[in-house]
Amino acid sequence: MSAHCKTVLASKVSASFRNQIKADIKERNIRPKLVGFLANEDPAAMKYAEWTSKTCAETGVEFELRKVNKQDLEEEITEANEDKSVNGIMVYYPVFGGKQDLYLQSCVSELKDVEGLCHKFVYNVYHNIRFMNKEETMKCIIPCTPLAIVKILEFVGVYNTVLPYGNRLYGRTITVVNRSEIVGRPLAAMLSNDGAKVFSVDVNGIQVFTRGKGIHLTAHKVEDIDAKLEEVVPQSDVVITGVPSPNYKLPTALLKDGVIAINFSSFANFEEDVKSRASIYVPSVGKVTVAMLERNLLRLYDYQNNITEQ
Amino acid sequence: MSAHCKTVLASKVSASFRNQIKADIKERNIRPKLVGFLANEDPAAMKYAEWTSKTCAETGVEFELRKVNKQDLEEEITEANEDKSVNGIMVYYPVFGGKQDLYLQSCVSELKDVEGLCHKFVYNVYHNIRFMNKEETMKCIIPCTPLAIVKILEFVGVYNTVLPYGNRLYGRTITVVNRSEIVGRPLAAMLSNDGAKVFSVDVNGIQVFTRGKGIHLTAHKVEDIDAKLEEVVPQSDVVITGVPSPNYKLPTALLKDGVIAINFSSFANFEEDVKSRASIYVPSVGKVTVAMLERNLLRLYDYQNNITEQ
Repeated sequence: MSAHCKTVLASKVSASFRNQIKADIKERNIRPKLVGFLANEDPAAMKYAEWTSKTCAETGVEFELRKVNKQDLEEEITEANEDKSVNGIMVYYPVFGGKQDLYLQSCVSELKDVEGLCHKFVYNVYHNIRFMNKEETMKCIIPCTPLAIVKILEFVGVYNTVLPYGNRLYGRTITVVNRSEIVGRPLAAMLSNDGAKVFSVDVNGIQVFTRGKGIHLTAHKVEDIDAKLEEVVPQSDVVITGVPSPNYKLPTALLKDGVIAINFSSFANFEEDVKSRASIYVPSVGKVTVAMLERNLLRLYDYQNNITEQ
Repeated sequence: MSAHCKTVLASKVSASFRNQIKADIKERNIRPKLVGFLANEDPAAMKYAEWTSKTCAETGVEFELRKVNKQDLEEEITEANEDKSVNGIMVYYPVFGGKQDLYLQSCVSELKDVEGLCHKFVYNVYHNIRFMNKEETMKCIIPCTPLAIVKILEFVGVYNTVLPYGNRLYGRTITVVNRSEIVGRPLAAMLSNDGAKVFSVDVNGIQVFTRGKGIHLTAHKVEDIDAKLEEVVPQSDVVITGVPSPNYKLPTALLKDGVIAINFSSFANFEEDVKSRASIYVPSVGKVTVAMLERNLLRLYDYQNNITEQ
């Protein structure tokens, strides 16, 4: 049965982005600088930092990892915001773990926020606002993991390019198991803004995101629904998981035949036999996320140098 | 023994502010409008809304309570941001309870944020930035409960007016039992920015806030310390509590003789015999908070009408 399932690795999805970034940097003879702040002892964060460093070296981006004390992080960010030699800033979360991390996300200058996690960028995702400025010459930075997942969905053909831009997920049903403020909730909003019906699942319950008609906004709407995972997963064309636990396994028996299964947790959230049901299985997304970080970095480099679209 | 302790009621502290606001509104013949959004069923929030309504009516502010569905709140805030007839916006928290509430706080326009909870205002408190604009004509809005507590500390003589502005808590040791993002943490920063040594206590441990010397900032610094409540409370000239539980009681035996005890929780966090040790006891702060909301509203009303300090 597993012969029918195609496993798509993040390295394959990210290749074309990496090549494009590398060529762009070489052609323009520039050397954008990304600073990563590490203030925790999380081995997953350390591994992610190593990847970032390696990928940056390959593509021509200068990456500097700064290990700092938690209590000094805010001031270190403030200094990097003001340092003209720094083009992009990222932080390995969690730092404090609670609401204070959301505060820190907004301390990064929007002109250097490669992760797209400051309030303005997250707000713009929810409100489907695609430009940073009124003149519409500067596209918004989009939170990098949700953006990576969108790029994967494009790569595996979930976005229907026959449909007009902004409507390419129309008719798709997608379940996202994770509703964090940095990945799951913005991702659900982005997918529904593109026309999908999205079931957003977390321990507190299930919400459905659809493209509603706001009075001012052509953005998604959200409703709490009284449903179980067992009811929403079997309806879903795509199931995306991001549960940060080695023990969580989404039961393969719930998946519909031919489903597209994508896992963005650092733990495998699908069971080993997921390929018996899935048509496409993407076991991790990290390398695409790093490519999106670099893509965002180049965009911000241009904005810092007043290079904008006409 | 309790004859030595003076109980100071919030209504007494707030009286002069209320009178000043009332006179100002009458003299200028204006009618600023405050909108409060209630999206929970919390009886404490309902009570606070009733107080706000009553106080506003007395002072000449138009208060409108809007009961909304949680999922509609963000769009309701966006509409109120754009509605020129609305001068101030407040939200009764908690709404979702987690990080999403911090996201909502930053959805309120800074020109209407009477609670002072959007990222810019909270950031400015931490960085001791006192103006909203470069020209230094628009003072920042300060988070209203921490501001109310500062006004109480001024009223009861903890701020030493003989010392220069910005240094009037020099030499004071203060314990704050609560390190929430909306009260405890900004309060600790504000008090240390004014010169105090502040022990900030929560379930995760104790931090000490002092006025450090940042490279760019003349703002506080924070250190985690390995100390117990039993060690820090007896050193403190002022003890401020805000534990949202009916079961929490700070032991009177820990308080030093003559301490100033202030409770901002809706539950009594001090034991009944607190007056046997305290010189001044402030059992609640809510009415001062409402006065500060109105004060912030008037300031924002002026900014909206381009009336700034010269």
